Amino acid sequence: MLTNIRTTRIEWGDCDPAGIIFYPRYFEIFDVSTTMLMEHALGMKKIEYLKAYGIAGHPVLETRAKFRLPTRFGDEVSIESALVHCGRSSFKIEHRLTKAGALAAEGAETRVWVVRDPADPTRMTSQAMPPEVVARLTHG
Amino acid sequence: MLTNIRTTRIEWGDCDPAGIIFYPRYFEIFDVSTTMLMEHALGMKKIEYLKAYGIAGHPVLETRAKFRLPTRFGDEVSIESALVHCGRSSFKIEHRLTKAGALAAEGAETRVWVVRDPADPTRMTSQAMPPEVVARLTHG
Amino acid sequence: MLTNIRTTRIEWGDCDPAGIIFYPRYFEIFDVSTTMLMEHALGMKKIEYLKAYGIAGHPVLETRAKFRLPTRFGDEVSIESALVHCGRSSFKIEHRLTKAGALAAEGAETRVWVVRDPADPTRMTSQAMPPEVVARLTHG
Amino acid sequence: MLTNIRTTRIEWGDCDPAGIIFYPRYFEIFDVSTTMLMEHALGMKKIEYLKAYGIAGHPVLETRAKFRLPTRFGDEVSIESALVHCGRSSFKIEHRLTKAGALAAEGAETRVWVVRDPADPTRMTSQAMPPEVVARLTHG
Repeated sequence: MLTNIRTTRIEWGDCDPAGIIFYPRYFEIFDVSTTMLMEHALGMKKIEYLKAYGIAGHPVLETRAKFRLPTRFGDEVSIESALVHCGRSSFKIEHRLTKAGALAAEGAETRVWVVRDPADPTRMTSQAMPPEVVARLTHG
Repeated sequence: MLTNIRTTRIEWGDCDPAGIIFYPRYFEIFDVSTTMLMEHALGMKKIEYLKAYGIAGHPVLETRAKFRLPTRFGDEVSIESALVHCGRSSFKIEHRLTKAGALAAEGAETRVWVVRDPADPTRMTSQAMPPEVVARLTHG
Repeated sequence: MLTNIRTTRIEWGDCDPAGIIFYPRYFEIFDVSTTMLMEHALGMKKIEYLKAYGIAGHPVLETRAKFRLPTRFGDEVSIESALVHCGRSSFKIEHRLTKAGALAAEGAETRVWVVRDPADPTRMTSQAMPPEVVARLTHG
Repeated sequence: MLTNIRTTRIEWGDCDPAGIIFYPRYFEIFDVSTTMLMEHALGMKKIEYLKAYGIAGHPVLETRAKFRLPTRFGDEVSIESALVHCGRSSFKIEHRLTKAGALAAEGAETRVWVVRDPADPTRMTSQAMPPEVVARLTHG
């Protein structure tokens, strides 16, 4: 199973007047982790693999998260991400964010592989992932 | 059932290099809608009701969202929010974001009423909502 | 002189643990005001005028701001923006953000009209603004 | 002179539909660098030094920035920050952000040391920095 672990720090500007992280920031953190997971699997930076595979991106179709412990500015956190399912044109990633070993937040997201519609470049349509990509994601 | 409808516009800075909204921004939009719903129910601005009820806030415990249609900068969207459950110290809100009448995104969140721990103001603990608040949320 | 006035509200998620707006949010507010000023002048939404004029955008080259009074979540603010200079490929906009009539923040920004480099679409180069655009910006 | 150097990466969610960083994100980057500079000088995390010195923060009074080269998602950047002036209750920091050695963005900010007004905790007033803080900032 493809996994990625990274650490980051919750910053002053991530926190709200209650002094804890403003929860949409967790999804920004998860998005960075997904990028890193994909870059690691595909052996290229995102800006490169978008071009190499001719895609517009892999936007989120569906997501859910639970916030178990508050995090505050200055907290060092670790995010462990894993690809838990890989379909034809979509894949699912789960994230676990811990603080000093304790689970603080967990998230899951389903993403879809999309290309720009040739007839209308402002539109995007899902597309089957190339076999090479599926292989790299599943035999990571 | 307590509901709130508002409109907003997706802006350039909300969008990513694919030209569509960066999905964490939807949670920022939902958070504003929840604030408005609560302000409407309680008859006070958030900064006032935090003080009036002595709470640190009502952070999100759990959330999920589905993104059905992409939105782009310049899109006028409507967000309809409804309080769908009210417990002792938590409540659940659902949001439906539409673009030209079509459902583009939907979200649900469970929030908890929290006070600062008197023994340690950096800690927060859940607390039963005052009966007046429950009444206003449920007979809104 | 081309001007635009709009109102917005400082939200919970815009504020930091000190309870006041996290200052980078002011630049997000100014960016929206610039979009509105340009849309008003050019008679098209930004997504439309980027396409109509074949540009990648009008990124900021230089900016400065002074923050005179703190703003807090729930504050209704007004932003008055004016185009104060229009050159060949760049223009300058000034913003004044007021709260209950008092000047809370002011900003100035110089932007440049850019197209994607045909030889390398990931690169952008400045270009003279079309006479029609200059006319609309200066005789707005 | 007190200085700090750190590296970070421009991420997908920091970039706009032109594919380059949305400029308010630079101020978020600079804010993190200032936190790190202060933490290094004072030998404590921000959450600790706010408490130790009884302050609400050190908000920005004035800032300016020049953006010389665009940065894109995946770019590794280095930010060098220096305290260039220290007054009685305010101080000035300059930032230089480079990409592969080339200056991409530079910023300067003046910040003020503030405490909550005892008569009204929602108000903040500037206060002289403790001699120990001045000593640490200037003999860093």
